[in-house]
Amino acid sequence: MRKYARVTATVGDLLKRSLRSPPHSHSHSRSRLLSSSPILDHPSSSSSMSSPSNPAQPLSVATINAKVLKCEYAVRGEIVTLAQRLQEELLAKPGSHPFDEILYCNIGNPHSLGQQPITFFREVLALCDHPAILDRSETQGLFSADAIVRAWQVLDQIPGRATGAYSHSQGIKGLRDTIAAGIEARDGYPADPNDIFLTDGASPAVHMMMQLLIRSEGDGILCPIPQYPLYSASITLHGGTLVPYYLDEATGWGLETSELKKQLEAAKSKGINVRALVVINPGNPTGQVLAEDNQRAIVEFCKQEGLVLLADEVYQENVYVPDKKFHSFKKISRSMGYGNEDFSLVSFQSVSKGYYGECGKRGGYMEVTGFSAEIREQIYKMASVNLCSNISGQILASLVMSPPKVGDESFESYCAEKDGILSSLARRAKALEEALNNLEGVECNKAEGAMYLFPRIYLPEKAIKAAEAANTAPDAFYCRRLLNATGIVVVPGSGFGQVPGTWHFRCTILPQEDKIPAIVSRLTEFHKQFMEEFRN
Amino acid sequence: MRKYARVTATVGDLLKRSLRSPPHSHSHSRSRLLSSSPILDHPSSSSSMSSPSNPAQPLSVATINAKVLKCEYAVRGEIVTLAQRLQEELLAKPGSHPFDEILYCNIGNPHSLGQQPITFFREVLALCDHPAILDRSETQGLFSADAIVRAWQVLDQIPGRATGAYSHSQGIKGLRDTIAAGIEARDGYPADPNDIFLTDGASPAVHMMMQLLIRSEGDGILCPIPQYPLYSASITLHGGTLVPYYLDEATGWGLETSELKKQLEAAKSKGINVRALVVINPGNPTGQVLAEDNQRAIVEFCKQEGLVLLADEVYQENVYVPDKKFHSFKKISRSMGYGNEDFSLVSFQSVSKGYYGECGKRGGYMEVTGFSAEIREQIYKMASVNLCSNISGQILASLVMSPPKVGDESFESYCAEKDGILSSLARRAKALEEALNNLEGVECNKAEGAMYLFPRIYLPEKAIKAAEAANTAPDAFYCRRLLNATGIVVVPGSGFGQVPGTWHFRCTILPQEDKIPAIVSRLTEFHKQFMEEFRN
Repeated sequence: MRKYARVTATVGDLLKRSLRSPPHSHSHSRSRLLSSSPILDHPSSSSSMSSPSNPAQPLSVATINAKVLKCEYAVRGEIVTLAQRLQEELLAKPGSHPFDEILYCNIGNPHSLGQQPITFFREVLALCDHPAILDRSETQGLFSADAIVRAWQVLDQIPGRATGAYSHSQGIKGLRDTIAAGIEARDGYPADPNDIFLTDGASPAVHMMMQLLIRSEGDGILCPIPQYPLYSASITLHGGTLVPYYLDEATGWGLETSELKKQLEAAKSKGINVRALVVINPGNPTGQVLAEDNQRAIVEFCKQEGLVLLADEVYQENVYVPDKKFHSFKKISRSMGYGNEDFSLVSFQSVSKGYYGECGKRGGYMEVTGFSAEIREQIYKMASVNLCSNISGQILASLVMSPPKVGDESFESYCAEKDGILSSLARRAKALEEALNNLEGVECNKAEGAMYLFPRIYLPEKAIKAAEAANTAPDAFYCRRLLNATGIVVVPGSGFGQVPGTWHFRCTILPQEDKIPAIVSRLTEFHKQFMEEFRN
Repeated sequence: MRKYARVTATVGDLLKRSLRSPPHSHSHSRSRLLSSSPILDHPSSSSSMSSPSNPAQPLSVATINAKVLKCEYAVRGEIVTLAQRLQEELLAKPGSHPFDEILYCNIGNPHSLGQQPITFFREVLALCDHPAILDRSETQGLFSADAIVRAWQVLDQIPGRATGAYSHSQGIKGLRDTIAAGIEARDGYPADPNDIFLTDGASPAVHMMMQLLIRSEGDGILCPIPQYPLYSASITLHGGTLVPYYLDEATGWGLETSELKKQLEAAKSKGINVRALVVINPGNPTGQVLAEDNQRAIVEFCKQEGLVLLADEVYQENVYVPDKKFHSFKKISRSMGYGNEDFSLVSFQSVSKGYYGECGKRGGYMEVTGFSAEIREQIYKMASVNLCSNISGQILASLVMSPPKVGDESFESYCAEKDGILSSLARRAKALEEALNNLEGVECNKAEGAMYLFPRIYLPEKAIKAAEAANTAPDAFYCRRLLNATGIVVVPGSGFGQVPGTWHFRCTILPQEDKIPAIVSRLTEFHKQFMEEFRN
């Protein structure tokens, strides 16, 4: 055996290069604050009251990544922790609270509130999980014929029919073909399966784009206020700057390009390099559905300003008003004559929303158009580090973009399930909106789409003072009182952002219809007492 | 309606604070390099040959996050892209290459190479996907009785039996109870379900810990060389420094604490704040199984140096030699008398490995012990931003930690499937190891565990020169030639790191047994020709 001397070694080299460059302390204001914190090997005792740090444990909140500490996610924040505690108390001691169940209206999680899955989708998933039964005669009696056919089709799209294998990092090619065909059918414009990246829900896709776009605090992302806090959390975690633009509550949460322009200029004047615009349509938490001409103006704005458009379109199937219709930004931009060469767009879709609401499956995709081949290679590389998204979620994403069609055995029952859910959601949205608008000091825009209402509450000065005394935001104070009195969990507007001096909360429209009257009366009664208590 | 003026608004405040602090350019060497790149609004044409950047497209490789650009992941890198191209060519034009199929030995993906799933696991998953059939009589004939019972048990652990709902962000509590019981049974020491975070495979869990630990380039993570490139990729993406320690090939990839100490001191002297130690046991790509006393020394080292131990234990079921046994670091540390107060440990587990190899399900967990309550709150918050991991993966993680037991209907067939796979893997590992050691200029340590062999190849000077001329690393040159000649895909050692001047490749032991003789003869023939061609 001979030894040949060489010096190249990809990973090794990288490390040595890394080690050679001197470490530095970032000039990030928060980091600077932390640079005086104890070094790792000799952690001092932490000042936290909740659990004093143990000198034998190397980590303390003073020595973790400050971006993690700074990040907030109200949808599963403090109020939910309180709700979980109350639920445990109810279980341990029934009757210990003035309600007998916790109603989780904090998050768009339809199945947790009793929504049933679409049968066809679950049939196909079960058959793909256990393909050994596909040839058995009993299976014919248990599953619909088109579900069996579809399961075979899906399996044939998977190399070696191996549903237990890692797939291509963008997702199984055949499933991406199906999704692309679904997008084409929706938009009337071509879609390329190579533009599609299947992901474990929309959240990891958003993180991936933020990771790609954000280099430092000097990079900004335009986000609506109010916004879904995934965006603020992700921007914080990746060390960028959220550049807010305000939706206009008075015009039904209107999105004005003049506001976009104003905030862009303000950010630029502060030296922020704004890289992308986030638009959530239908809106979360605000529920508005954008009009076509508004969308055209947004596309034009992004094009002129050289911004990537990050289009959160996960509620595309959730539109409840006859005068509004969902249009994808891809369709809008194509209808304006803009192709891949002209306009950079990422559209996010998820299996967690729509009429299916399959949150637990963690399926979704992003369609990435108008990026160069080399940028897409970088996105592919990021996807490949996590290998691939889960195959059941991938299959489900293809099913929601290609549901049963006329003539299929499941078609009628599928339509009945789908229409039943969507029309019920529309009724629930209306009932809750009306109830909220009947409350003193509450104004609530219509939920044209999505799964939420975002009422404004005009809180009495005395309540605001009481909140201040309790060291909490006034809307959080209201929400906490609401939970303690009724078991209803909603999220304070401060978790989404709002015009300073205004207060809101987000409430899903998802409780089952038979529960709505009780919710309305509990809410109304609570609100009356609250207003009485704090009347000036 | 009255308006009460207030100024607090959590998200809004955060943004304003963000905007107020002036943007800065990081002193990161790579960032500095890029700070002279064109500003976003007026991108210049890129110098890349593959696809010149389009002035209408806002993003170019010069303006994306440099950490993404820098990150490498060889397991799905260049050589795999070539393999995919060859596969397409074979499909389009059979006979166009000197082989008729591509054998993906680049990645631990058992089902893609024909391994069959464990029946019991898939039965339970299918039933949980479509619980509507649980009560049907045909189901009794199609599914084993204990799978039906288990599916009911799992459903009863899920609030509202809603397999389509987001779960608790750490994972469904009942499933975590099951996993904790499985860990206790494995180790003989208590496990706490609140220490368990279910994740979409082990990769997101590793990212989460890196995100928590790494504040800047000044933070280092001790990693084995060779290592699984998830670690280098994740450290790069999160902006930290990989501090390498070398495994000793001469002693069967031994892990010496003297080497750990040496590298730690070297890093410290360069101002690096080393925060954690990564240990992969059984080893990837190196296949060694650590001895108990070695593990004790590692625990002691971490404790003394105040390091978090990140224990990659995803191959815990893959041990092939009678004289070695897997011991979790949790068990080792507890057996040394160290509890939560003394020692910070994260253990990663996955459903993708073991005898089950369910890569496509993206299930896994980390068990986080020895952290303060406030640090765990931060981990929980990070998990909550992505809501939860996929429920099928969660269920499967609970099943692999609690498989059928004596007396269950499936027990015998389950054992037969499991033992069949594990004993076959042991035979394959041995056959491939022997074949490699029979090659001129190749030395290969035993695969005691995991799914890989990592042979050293002593390349002739002439081959090294040829690689240099082709502007590629010599081992990558060898692997590319191997692929072109035989259709066998392996990963160059340079993707994992190796002692400078040595060359290796990683090859999985996963091809089905009936294919091993053909692989051995193709590999042997190729190697002979290669050595002849480049003999000095």
